[in-house]
Amino acid sequence: MNIEEYAFLYKSTLLKNVLPFWENHSLDHKHGGYFTCLDREGKVYDTDKFIWLQCRQVWLFSMLYNNMEPRQEWLEIAEHGARFLINNGMDKAGNWYFSLTREGKPLVQPYNIFSDCFAAMAFAQLGKASGNEAYSNLAKKTFLNILGRKENPKGKYEKSFPGTRPAKGFALPMILSNLVLELEHVLDVSLVNETIAFATKEVMDIFYRKEHGLIVETVAADGSFMDTFDGRLVNPGHGLESMWFMMDIGRRNGDNKLVEKTVDISFNILDFGWDQKCGGIFYFKDLLGNPPDRLDWDQKLWWVHQEAILAMLKGYAYTGNEKCWEWFRKLHDYTWEHFADKKYGEWFGYLNRQGGVLLPLKGGKWKGCFHTPRFLYQGWNTLNQINKNNK
Amino acid sequence: MNIEEYAFLYKSTLLKNVLPFWENHSLDHKHGGYFTCLDREGKVYDTDKFIWLQCRQVWLFSMLYNNMEPRQEWLEIAEHGARFLINNGMDKAGNWYFSLTREGKPLVQPYNIFSDCFAAMAFAQLGKASGNEAYSNLAKKTFLNILGRKENPKGKYEKSFPGTRPAKGFALPMILSNLVLELEHVLDVSLVNETIAFATKEVMDIFYRKEHGLIVETVAADGSFMDTFDGRLVNPGHGLESMWFMMDIGRRNGDNKLVEKTVDISFNILDFGWDQKCGGIFYFKDLLGNPPDRLDWDQKLWWVHQEAILAMLKGYAYTGNEKCWEWFRKLHDYTWEHFADKKYGEWFGYLNRQGGVLLPLKGGKWKGCFHTPRFLYQGWNTLNQINKNNK
Repeated sequence: MNIEEYAFLYKSTLLKNVLPFWENHSLDHKHGGYFTCLDREGKVYDTDKFIWLQCRQVWLFSMLYNNMEPRQEWLEIAEHGARFLINNGMDKAGNWYFSLTREGKPLVQPYNIFSDCFAAMAFAQLGKASGNEAYSNLAKKTFLNILGRKENPKGKYEKSFPGTRPAKGFALPMILSNLVLELEHVLDVSLVNETIAFATKEVMDIFYRKEHGLIVETVAADGSFMDTFDGRLVNPGHGLESMWFMMDIGRRNGDNKLVEKTVDISFNILDFGWDQKCGGIFYFKDLLGNPPDRLDWDQKLWWVHQEAILAMLKGYAYTGNEKCWEWFRKLHDYTWEHFADKKYGEWFGYLNRQGGVLLPLKGGKWKGCFHTPRFLYQGWNTLNQINKNNK
Repeated sequence: MNIEEYAFLYKSTLLKNVLPFWENHSLDHKHGGYFTCLDREGKVYDTDKFIWLQCRQVWLFSMLYNNMEPRQEWLEIAEHGARFLINNGMDKAGNWYFSLTREGKPLVQPYNIFSDCFAAMAFAQLGKASGNEAYSNLAKKTFLNILGRKENPKGKYEKSFPGTRPAKGFALPMILSNLVLELEHVLDVSLVNETIAFATKEVMDIFYRKEHGLIVETVAADGSFMDTFDGRLVNPGHGLESMWFMMDIGRRNGDNKLVEKTVDISFNILDFGWDQKCGGIFYFKDLLGNPPDRLDWDQKLWWVHQEAILAMLKGYAYTGNEKCWEWFRKLHDYTWEHFADKKYGEWFGYLNRQGGVLLPLKGGKWKGCFHTPRFLYQGWNTLNQINKNNK
């Protein structure tokens, strides 16, 4: 395939295959919000509502409205979810729950901060799409609440004993590096720049371990490496996703050195994470080659492969490094062959090591209307950029 | 193989293969307690100490001293772990932590009650083995603390929102049904009988769902079925383990009807849990055939198969039902072929669906010196009983 054919494939799959699946099957017309637990054909098999996925779907349709085409029906789908979230999603202090019943009653407490991150993303995009300032204000308020909880994101649900082994996780700085660009239009310039500087330093200087050339999921509070289960854990998909976040920051700031470095790190992660025997990228590995404590370590997950493709496409668009294009083609072939469901549309999420379908669901507690359409949109967009560069 | 040959295999594997692995590799002579993170050959790859596994190893060596042979070195190994646990394992209120550093500093708070359950088991057996009443008193104190925390075992770490969907889990009543027999010699008769009655009712009338013939992991607080991820989750290994706990209670109380019922339920669980395609028993399944929310659902775990074998051996010893013996032989063949490590001794813990080794470890965060030697001891003992019955 040439670049234009790739671009056409990504765009047409987004518009004619993936979005219709969610438009047709996920809206709860009775109680509001979205069903995300959809089986292979799109039938609802569980009605609980998970805030991460509710927010991500609001974000996705708002983002497409803003960036691709201002289709009224996309805005309506986003606002359908937003109403449900505003009515039911927060406790009195403005913290976002983890999950709700179909009717909107809280099920699981705000025990982590990622519901809040995805809520801020969702309402910032929807504020832009709708022009409704109430949404933008909610996004800003939620973002400031995240910054306030940053040092102790789990609050009373934190299970580690204070002081014995102070540590910090990669997920929050990584998400902040993306979130701050999502909210740029509603935040003060100084806060945007501060947050970008903080997140970039954490990702590139602390969680990236120069001595191994890889990114780990947890480090000691002082930034040093920990030879423990958590400290040795590498999540290649996480690392690759963070690298394209960093590429976007480098691009925005005209920082070519940062972009070059993220491309090199991405190659390291791909070399480390690629399964030489069966193909695909492992979900987890231990940095030092010990057995990881995750039983799902050898599985192949849809988002891991989609983020890897985006890292390589952006790397190619921003640097022209041909090795990015070679990796893109290898990743594209594996990913489209194994994850795309040729029979019922949309994508499988969970494969075993051998590439067979582990769970036939299209959505569940963690997979919703987010990674696949974001990947197709960003992939299409980046392929167009590459095409322009080449002309 | 005839019954005597099976019995010999179980006993000799325990004494000459499995126990030496732990005797040689697990003792921390510098800081006390045991290493449990041992690779295939027995090398320590992580030094954190997990209370479940520390307690279970104390229990195992004490139990063998009490029931098999009063070997002084077994008692010494048990007391080696007990000293470390008493010095480091509890908070000021007597709740048991989840994990400690190698040196014994608390790492993870007492966020669940199962550390306490295994501590009570350990110190009750060690009290019996050593004749030291301090151990027995600690066992009793811990047991009473468990009963006091029974209604809210996670305390402040409970993440479910109060009142929306009140629920209860299978693990605690199941463990209590075994624990109470372990502590029978240190508890008042009335408390023993009350606890047995409570646990038996919960297991046999509430978590066993007559309409499906299977045991679920979670039910509503009022005992009704919940059509949710948690409510639909079936853990066949858990179910089978609880069935042999119930067989032992039925046997103790001369309740043949209970024993017969547990044998029937065990057959149902085996029919439901057996992987027709690849052999072995699945780790998790959804009762209604929906995709479970556990990515490790299709894996084959050592303890699941060992508990299944014990259920079938006890079922055969107590009822003579030939179907138990047929299942025993099928399970024995799969389990010994796939889990026993012919090269370095001890047993693999985690296989993929196809029966290949998923993690080459002999011990980790959840696997230690417990299920395999308990299985070999109980298997040997029950095979001897069957042999006597047949004469």
